[in-house]
Amino acid sequence: MSTYLNETDAGKRIMRRCDELGSISKPGVGVTRLYLSPEHRKAAETIVGWMQDAGMEARIDEAGNVVGRYHAESGGGPYLVTGSHMDSVVNAGRYDGPLGVLSSLDCVAGLNSRHRRLPFGIEVVAFADEEGTRFRTTLAGSRALTGQFGDDLFNAKDTDGVSVRDAMVGFGLDPEFVDKAAHRPQDVIGYVELHIEQGPVLQAAGLPVGVVTAISGQTRAVMRLKSAANHAGTVPMGMRRDPLLAASEIALEVERIASTYLNTVGTVGFIRAEPGLINVIPGEVSLTVDLRSQGDADRYAAYAQLETAAREIARRRGVEFEIDTILDLKSCPCEPDFIRQMQTAVEKVGVRSLHLPSGAGHDGMAMSSLTQIGMIFVRCKDGISHSPDESVTAEDVAAGASALLHFIENFQGNQ
Amino acid sequence: MSTYLNETDAGKRIMRRCDELGSISKPGVGVTRLYLSPEHRKAAETIVGWMQDAGMEARIDEAGNVVGRYHAESGGGPYLVTGSHMDSVVNAGRYDGPLGVLSSLDCVAGLNSRHRRLPFGIEVVAFADEEGTRFRTTLAGSRALTGQFGDDLFNAKDTDGVSVRDAMVGFGLDPEFVDKAAHRPQDVIGYVELHIEQGPVLQAAGLPVGVVTAISGQTRAVMRLKSAANHAGTVPMGMRRDPLLAASEIALEVERIASTYLNTVGTVGFIRAEPGLINVIPGEVSLTVDLRSQGDADRYAAYAQLETAAREIARRRGVEFEIDTILDLKSCPCEPDFIRQMQTAVEKVGVRSLHLPSGAGHDGMAMSSLTQIGMIFVRCKDGISHSPDESVTAEDVAAGASALLHFIENFQGNQ
Repeated sequence: MSTYLNETDAGKRIMRRCDELGSISKPGVGVTRLYLSPEHRKAAETIVGWMQDAGMEARIDEAGNVVGRYHAESGGGPYLVTGSHMDSVVNAGRYDGPLGVLSSLDCVAGLNSRHRRLPFGIEVVAFADEEGTRFRTTLAGSRALTGQFGDDLFNAKDTDGVSVRDAMVGFGLDPEFVDKAAHRPQDVIGYVELHIEQGPVLQAAGLPVGVVTAISGQTRAVMRLKSAANHAGTVPMGMRRDPLLAASEIALEVERIASTYLNTVGTVGFIRAEPGLINVIPGEVSLTVDLRSQGDADRYAAYAQLETAAREIARRRGVEFEIDTILDLKSCPCEPDFIRQMQTAVEKVGVRSLHLPSGAGHDGMAMSSLTQIGMIFVRCKDGISHSPDESVTAEDVAAGASALLHFIENFQGNQ
Repeated sequence: MSTYLNETDAGKRIMRRCDELGSISKPGVGVTRLYLSPEHRKAAETIVGWMQDAGMEARIDEAGNVVGRYHAESGGGPYLVTGSHMDSVVNAGRYDGPLGVLSSLDCVAGLNSRHRRLPFGIEVVAFADEEGTRFRTTLAGSRALTGQFGDDLFNAKDTDGVSVRDAMVGFGLDPEFVDKAAHRPQDVIGYVELHIEQGPVLQAAGLPVGVVTAISGQTRAVMRLKSAANHAGTVPMGMRRDPLLAASEIALEVERIASTYLNTVGTVGFIRAEPGLINVIPGEVSLTVDLRSQGDADRYAAYAQLETAAREIARRRGVEFEIDTILDLKSCPCEPDFIRQMQTAVEKVGVRSLHLPSGAGHDGMAMSSLTQIGMIFVRCKDGISHSPDESVTAEDVAAGASALLHFIENFQGNQ
């Protein structure tokens, strides 16, 4: 019998706050809360208030993150950092990000209500910009917290041409002081984040939560296949050099190759045929590949295999082939000992422990430059995220928050 | 030894007139000469003059076609109609259409210079609108000549909102009189057209000309594959319902199935994935199919086989499937006796006779409602048409025009 079902009230409490935070949004469908916007300001101030109510010392930092500290029994740190992000994509749901912030906050509120302090402090962070929707740069909040907020971020511009630097001033921040948001390694003993899964694995397994093994590495590539457009009626099948047929074979190879590696996925999300007319054999086709794997060795092997296969398909069909790798992001493994401690916490809550990689990126990727990281996933309906249809149950949220609290209360650092 | 090589002068003469007609164009790359435009008017008047020089009675008819009559030895008709179209697509070449008009005209000029009349008259037509570029309706010229110019044509509008009816008035035509362009069946004993192949078959066979068996029938369809867009990182390969992979399999089935039928081609010219982002598994994919065959039975069988295969692919992948047939155009066979007479004419020119279907549409499709049709193709470089790169040689044009003249001089009607 699961014990966490008794904690459903906590799940409801956290979800009510997700609703409240979700109401701070640009008008429109779902939640739209972008970095350095008025909605960001209002959400941050709301969270500061909730943190103070939970006995924390809270502030908006020099990059727009909210940082709340619940000091150790001895006063001060070092701190176990926990939290997630408060920004959203356009027309988002209410849980991607806020669920981790507000679950962490609820854990601290629980400790505080019991007047319980731990041998270490707890820092709850609401990161200001994980999605990168406004300026098309990701992890700005966690990059500030880890001293990686560089000129590429400062100079990035939104679609109105406003730079991050100028938007910071408009928000009431001094860009010169962004370094002050950076934490010293000696003040931090770990980072743990609760997040909705954004995938269907937990639902399929019938489990409310799962322990994350790693944030998958990613390769992104654009392939271009070229020959010459031709009349759809006049070229016999055997005389064609059709780049769309080459692209079709390549897309199926992406699927086949990704399927042969463990914890690896490959996707063709974009394809375009030129000129793209019903009665013209295409002369050029572009397609994208997104390849992710828990293990970097697997990802590099799969990518090399795919490139070889694609070149051979193009050669056989008499089509020119080009490939550009536009992203190569290493896997970010969770600390094995954090995984073990999270597994214990999940089992204490009465749930079978399932380990899975995170195919989506998270602030832990930036945090891993500062400290060891761990993550726990909460089941979301049909794996849907980045949509107003994002949905979780109070029972599952309670299970996640209970496991997080167990993890925090029993945290032993890296053994 | 080919005899037609002695006729290269005729090829050069015809090509010079193609150049001259090609200079009557909207400014820009290549030739742009659209229906009822000032360029149409100027080209028509030029052709009328050339016809008169060749001893013909010529006029611009009530639909904008140029019709020139070279009367029989007894005076008057009936007439063997020959010619092609004088309109072009945007940024076209100089030969698609004009080559047939000016070869026919050159045949008559040759007869006239020898004071030779035949037992039947010859009518050379420069059709006003085969491509249908301006009003997105095809065969307007030959539909007028065959009494099929209906309200769908009159009411069609160009991108500026000008209707065919209004454009006719601007051109100096009276739309009320369009029926006067229609020919009576008893005045016509056949239609024969010379045209560039617009495909690579003759070039691959090393032949200057070929005898057309039929204008292929066409089926055009749009397929839609739907599931739900999802995160490219978080859905394991085995849990995906990816419409792009279903579409890829279907595109390869189009190729495989078309290849199993004789004189049949199938093309996917357009594909679109929604939302079309590198990091999102598509939720919906649309693709088009263009299927053409010399034989309607083959085409219907291939289409049914494709639809069954596509439904099975979609079912297996858990993707919704819809198909809309947007065009079903019957094959237009050339008259078997015309094919035999054209074969004799081609062999008289010293060329091995190769029979091939026309995968592209032609005015013969409309003319077939009035009379029996025949066609001869002239090799064009790399099969390229609808491009300023359209290219033919004087030798090949001479071979085509010589064969056409042989055909006309020895025409026996339908035996």
